[in-house]
Amino acid sequence: MKDFYLSFDESSPKYLQLTKHIKELITSGKLTNHYRLPSIRRLSQHLKVSTSTIVQCYNNLENDGFVYKKVGGGTYVIGDNNKSMLKEDFSDISLESKVPYDFASASPSPVFFPVKTFKELLNRVLDRDGGYAFNYQEQGGYLPLRQSLTSMLTNYKIYVTAQEVSIITGGQQGVDIIAKALLEKNDYVVVEKPSYPGAIASFNSRSANIIEVPIRQKGIDLIQLEKVLAQYKPKLMYLMPDFQSPTGYQYDLKSRKKVIELANKYNTYIVEDDHFSDLNYTSNSLPPLKSLDTMDKVIFVKSFSKAFMPGLRLALMIPPSSLHNQLNEVKQHTDISTSGLVQRAFDLFLREGLWDVHIKSTKQIYARRFSTALKMLERTLPWEVPFTHPTGGLCIWVSLPHNYNSQTLYYEALKKGVAILPGHRFYFSQNQHNTFRLSFTSVTEQEIAEGTKLLGDTVKQFLTDYRDLGHLKHPKSKFF
Amino acid sequence: MKDFYLSFDESSPKYLQLTKHIKELITSGKLTNHYRLPSIRRLSQHLKVSTSTIVQCYNNLENDGFVYKKVGGGTYVIGDNNKSMLKEDFSDISLESKVPYDFASASPSPVFFPVKTFKELLNRVLDRDGGYAFNYQEQGGYLPLRQSLTSMLTNYKIYVTAQEVSIITGGQQGVDIIAKALLEKNDYVVVEKPSYPGAIASFNSRSANIIEVPIRQKGIDLIQLEKVLAQYKPKLMYLMPDFQSPTGYQYDLKSRKKVIELANKYNTYIVEDDHFSDLNYTSNSLPPLKSLDTMDKVIFVKSFSKAFMPGLRLALMIPPSSLHNQLNEVKQHTDISTSGLVQRAFDLFLREGLWDVHIKSTKQIYARRFSTALKMLERTLPWEVPFTHPTGGLCIWVSLPHNYNSQTLYYEALKKGVAILPGHRFYFSQNQHNTFRLSFTSVTEQEIAEGTKLLGDTVKQFLTDYRDLGHLKHPKSKFF
Repeated sequence: MKDFYLSFDESSPKYLQLTKHIKELITSGKLTNHYRLPSIRRLSQHLKVSTSTIVQCYNNLENDGFVYKKVGGGTYVIGDNNKSMLKEDFSDISLESKVPYDFASASPSPVFFPVKTFKELLNRVLDRDGGYAFNYQEQGGYLPLRQSLTSMLTNYKIYVTAQEVSIITGGQQGVDIIAKALLEKNDYVVVEKPSYPGAIASFNSRSANIIEVPIRQKGIDLIQLEKVLAQYKPKLMYLMPDFQSPTGYQYDLKSRKKVIELANKYNTYIVEDDHFSDLNYTSNSLPPLKSLDTMDKVIFVKSFSKAFMPGLRLALMIPPSSLHNQLNEVKQHTDISTSGLVQRAFDLFLREGLWDVHIKSTKQIYARRFSTALKMLERTLPWEVPFTHPTGGLCIWVSLPHNYNSQTLYYEALKKGVAILPGHRFYFSQNQHNTFRLSFTSVTEQEIAEGTKLLGDTVKQFLTDYRDLGHLKHPKSKFF
Repeated sequence: MKDFYLSFDESSPKYLQLTKHIKELITSGKLTNHYRLPSIRRLSQHLKVSTSTIVQCYNNLENDGFVYKKVGGGTYVIGDNNKSMLKEDFSDISLESKVPYDFASASPSPVFFPVKTFKELLNRVLDRDGGYAFNYQEQGGYLPLRQSLTSMLTNYKIYVTAQEVSIITGGQQGVDIIAKALLEKNDYVVVEKPSYPGAIASFNSRSANIIEVPIRQKGIDLIQLEKVLAQYKPKLMYLMPDFQSPTGYQYDLKSRKKVIELANKYNTYIVEDDHFSDLNYTSNSLPPLKSLDTMDKVIFVKSFSKAFMPGLRLALMIPPSSLHNQLNEVKQHTDISTSGLVQRAFDLFLREGLWDVHIKSTKQIYARRFSTALKMLERTLPWEVPFTHPTGGLCIWVSLPHNYNSQTLYYEALKKGVAILPGHRFYFSQNQHNTFRLSFTSVTEQEIAEGTKLLGDTVKQFLTDYRDLGHLKHPKSKFF
């Protein structure tokens, strides 16, 4: 509470002085994103002012985009600067506190999680295994799960033994382990441009040099990629061939074969991050890089967060055999082992054939939302604002004209109750500010219809209001 | 299976050729620790030899200490070299496959886990929160759990707000996050000598320079510590003040105050790793360093693995306020968030007051085992083999005379069905080979009585057999 203390003067109404003070706490980073402000009653007592002063102040803060209110109650800080947003949001964390039209979060919707089924399986595991489910697990993961995963993987044309599969605590951990095992200071790493900020953070934490190669509709730019490989000899390239995040692009077969060929030629590893291949809304699927891997260069990481339940913290990794022991060792001194309870329950889930059932129904829901969203965006977004048309995954990538800043649009849209995810966080060299990401996982079809309309109106207004103002910052800054 | 293929010649009996072949697979690292060998029937069919050839071969391998057999069936590899043992066992992983007298594992015994209670709580959480329990969790951890932890922490004289507490995926992750956030290449880190190998591995992965300062009965050697601090200005010191692992030593109050004073004087952080303070078998408890921390230098990590259930993968961290954001950010790009389901169930466990009940009953069991063990070791170990007499924790630390190698004793003891943990893995500069660790968590009191007697006999025989042989290697090596 002591941060909130303020000795008022006579210069202006108290609620304005307090608003200014709290804004400073937010912009200075003392109050961070999602910090809950004191209750109205408590703060009024603390500052010895009337409750209506606090109410006016909190309303002002909300109007100015510094806080948001939760339906259940409570007023929460919206982090003010890019850095804090990168910190908080890179992993698509869904805020339980929601704006009415949340197109920012790419977390799957908890409403569709097979909670009842999974609960039954958890109980069966506990009845069967008792305390062993809560003990440390064997290195590499719970063997029966690894066995059932090998048979699941044949559907992806990946043929491995249980020994080759490692269980890890989510896809992010996979990338982080790989970074820790393979990268030393000043090693080069290739990522797609734009790419997943969580991976960039892991590579960055090893002080690696990160090289961004643009991704196009049919995959990474192969000509630029080869140049970079020849010049810098990177240790690894981090690729998302299926419904790349954030663009939703999918590598075609030619690009897949070519990146394998380049990895062999330039002797570099490929980290294949598969978050989304299960959410393919067409009947055509393309083989994962791992299945095309002729010289054991691909480290395959498959997450179950996006297509299943992120809170399980469960993923699998298949490294080349030459890296197998090293990566397992690093996994061990990262968190020793992944939850045995969750591994055992997920094993039963697979063995009972529930995975296919779940994916089928989840895909139907998301496919419908996705197609509604695409249809609506065609209608509501002006022609100067193109967007990708993915056939799978959870994200659509939108580009404003070059001199417009999506961070500014973010605040404008938030005022209307629409959350978008500004695109700068998906770049390492943060020189592109005109893009943003939309997801449609946490919203109903009706919300999509209403929200995209609001967004379209906001974008049109935004293009008009800010035309010729060039590269813009926060509209609340003193330049306005 | 193809690794097992062998074209037999006429030089010697087939079972001997096969034994030699499998030993090579093990020593070359192709078959690693705990790898399950093919069943007798399957291997006999594969190699087109009689089942008795395989039986003879497996018996030979067992006699020579290359494999062990499980009671339920199955034959498993014992990793042959120190390196693979370091890899496999540093975290005290309990093998479900057990030798009859397992004094190597310091995992708590699954038999005493409150599985039924925890199952009820898991069900209550799922009925209450549904899919939200399986979604990503807020940064820093599930807020209600952090709140209930703050009230638990007052019992340890630690007074903090929920915002200051971070939930992490086990104590190992805490140390690893700290290493990642604070250490750069060639930074200096102080650890106790001997120390916890998992922490050493994390510091090592950041290419830090690790300096070992001996631990004595009443804490780290303060004179040496100050010399090291003055000379190297280390970024942090990693200390376990309560029932240090592996020695079981406990810092007295004077040492606690002095290390805080030194941290302030030399401007270095202390990582206080609390695995064992809850397992204090006396009625005297000493304040954690965090509670004595006058200048916000202590990063407190409290694990619930040892005193509760390791498979929960749950711990808490309280960093100095200056490091709070940085460590939370690193936690996020390590595994995004810790399992929401487990956090919510553990929150209920605390709120229902079950923690104190659990700790009380667990302490009773371990205290009895510990006192039996100490009494028996007094009787069975010869006077040249001193050991520590901890009043808490799960480990006793034993020293052979200087020129004896505990790795050799390990193999000798294993033949009698007794597992000990050779001490070299607890040193960074692996120059001490005469120590070993005993734990009494996975064995009954009767097994303790029988096993310590067998161990005593083995040690006496070992001291006689190997007297004057100096610094010894594996007894199966060709020098014997």
